[in-house]
Amino acid sequence: MPRTDPNDLAAAVRDGQRRAIARAITRVENGLAGADALVDALYPHTGGAWRIGITGPPGAGKSTLTDRLIGSMREAGETVGVVAVDPSSPFTGGALLGDRVRLSERLGDDGVFYRSLAARGAGGGLSEATEAACDVLDAAGFSRIIVETVGVGQGELDVAEAADTVVVVLVPESGDAIQAMKAGLMEIADVFCVNKADHPDANALVGALRSTLRLRTARSDWMPPVVKTVATQAEGLDALTEAMQQHRDWLESGDRWQAMRDARLRRRVRRLVEADWQQRFWTPERQVALNEAVATLDGAERAPHALAHRVTAGHFDAA
Amino acid sequence: MPRTDPNDLAAAVRDGQRRAIARAITRVENGLAGADALVDALYPHTGGAWRIGITGPPGAGKSTLTDRLIGSMREAGETVGVVAVDPSSPFTGGALLGDRVRLSERLGDDGVFYRSLAARGAGGGLSEATEAACDVLDAAGFSRIIVETVGVGQGELDVAEAADTVVVVLVPESGDAIQAMKAGLMEIADVFCVNKADHPDANALVGALRSTLRLRTARSDWMPPVVKTVATQAEGLDALTEAMQQHRDWLESGDRWQAMRDARLRRRVRRLVEADWQQRFWTPERQVALNEAVATLDGAERAPHALAHRVTAGHFDAA
Repeated sequence: MPRTDPNDLAAAVRDGQRRAIARAITRVENGLAGADALVDALYPHTGGAWRIGITGPPGAGKSTLTDRLIGSMREAGETVGVVAVDPSSPFTGGALLGDRVRLSERLGDDGVFYRSLAARGAGGGLSEATEAACDVLDAAGFSRIIVETVGVGQGELDVAEAADTVVVVLVPESGDAIQAMKAGLMEIADVFCVNKADHPDANALVGALRSTLRLRTARSDWMPPVVKTVATQAEGLDALTEAMQQHRDWLESGDRWQAMRDARLRRRVRRLVEADWQQRFWTPERQVALNEAVATLDGAERAPHALAHRVTAGHFDAA
Repeated sequence: MPRTDPNDLAAAVRDGQRRAIARAITRVENGLAGADALVDALYPHTGGAWRIGITGPPGAGKSTLTDRLIGSMREAGETVGVVAVDPSSPFTGGALLGDRVRLSERLGDDGVFYRSLAARGAGGGLSEATEAACDVLDAAGFSRIIVETVGVGQGELDVAEAADTVVVVLVPESGDAIQAMKAGLMEIADVFCVNKADHPDANALVGALRSTLRLRTARSDWMPPVVKTVATQAEGLDALTEAMQQHRDWLESGDRWQAMRDARLRRRVRRLVEADWQQRFWTPERQVALNEAVATLDGAERAPHALAHRVTAGHFDAA
């Protein structure tokens, strides 16, 4: 495949060409040549899409719920880009299942673009790759972007950074609410979705979430609604959509929407600056010098902070 | 509480004084004054403990298993320090449950020290806090240190970095093996423990894990054993202990043990150098300048990589 000029590829993405969209995401996901220029060319044309994060513990039914949401968004005339964030590794080789099955259901619907992300090649890691993939879909004109985490791990935080509205999906099982608190999901939730709500303990979980939300230190004047769904039966989707819309309305009142997007860009620039510094700082020479110091120093000199100070002070730089 | 000189506190820790150990962990956990000097004073006296990580998805029975392991280690004449890593947040305020219940069971046993970690105050974040807490317990003379993750999230990776031997605990429930792969747990496991092995699907999970392990790209010549336990009934602990010991024996053959510890120190020094740079680089002036740029620039100038390059090139530094 010949390498396309970033500006030509950006133009093709903005034109909505599916092949260009796929190539652009591959390029930014893997930090290939021209990826930075591509992102910068697309970024000024982003902002039209509503970015929705779907996260929660394994087994909560996130994939099914995402599929249902795509369906109702399509019925409402929206176009939908989906980024499935899979913080996996070279061993598992990325997306384990699902893509083809789910894609096939909507095959031929140009209003949906589904893509899973696993690679960490981009400078700035998976967070940057996720945001850049969202930029591609946003600039391509999709009106809704769903960022769905697969499995557990750092993915949840990536979602929170990439999304305007974060839906945390839980199921009525013992300890799920407490697990959500432990995993930090309470902080990132804009909307709680209690899925598998036909389970007898569903109302207890709803109650526990609402009690906990009332107890928390107010982070803002937004109180996350708690809605019930049965994704497999397509039940509760209207309530979920309504709760998400309420959050969007709240964001759009005052200057919250712009402030949130500005904050996201600031975090991202900081991350890129840091990734760039790391790459420049850790020259092969510095790495070799540190390796040798760790292997040969002993006694009081073999101590983490003392070694870090020596690196910072330039003791390990080439003479 | 008067502030103790780092060297005096280090001496008291090495003397095994419980109150000093508790204060030292608090100091390194929160990055309080003298924390760096304390760590450096203790570090040369570490290395005697075997650091064992216990991780896995919520509900796998990690806490019960840890309690059982403590019991069998105590019977074998070992002393045990436990660090429970809880990557939670200001909202939940750290450890939610368990500590007091579990502590009370072993109250009065000076051979066990239990501590949960939540704060991220230390430069280098939770990873550094975890390693520093292990250093305190190691220098205090505990022969075994168990690092247990609570809940899900980044904690698993912290465990893998802090531990010599990582035990991944899974339970025979639908999809658990696949979830483990997705969460990256397959890569960090040195031993797999299928807990709640009295469940009818236990053998299927054991089989699935073994098949998957055979399929993976060989990371090393260590093949993680898969053992079955029923922690609530104290079943399978001998097999688990034996599998852990096999891993330790493997580490101690050749120069693997020292190489692993050297690699851990290198990672840690890198992390400290980076945390230090971040703190120095992001002066209030640079932050304000970036905020203003994000708020005022538009068009092609409002683009992540272009902004990052301007920061790096010094465009936002004070004149």
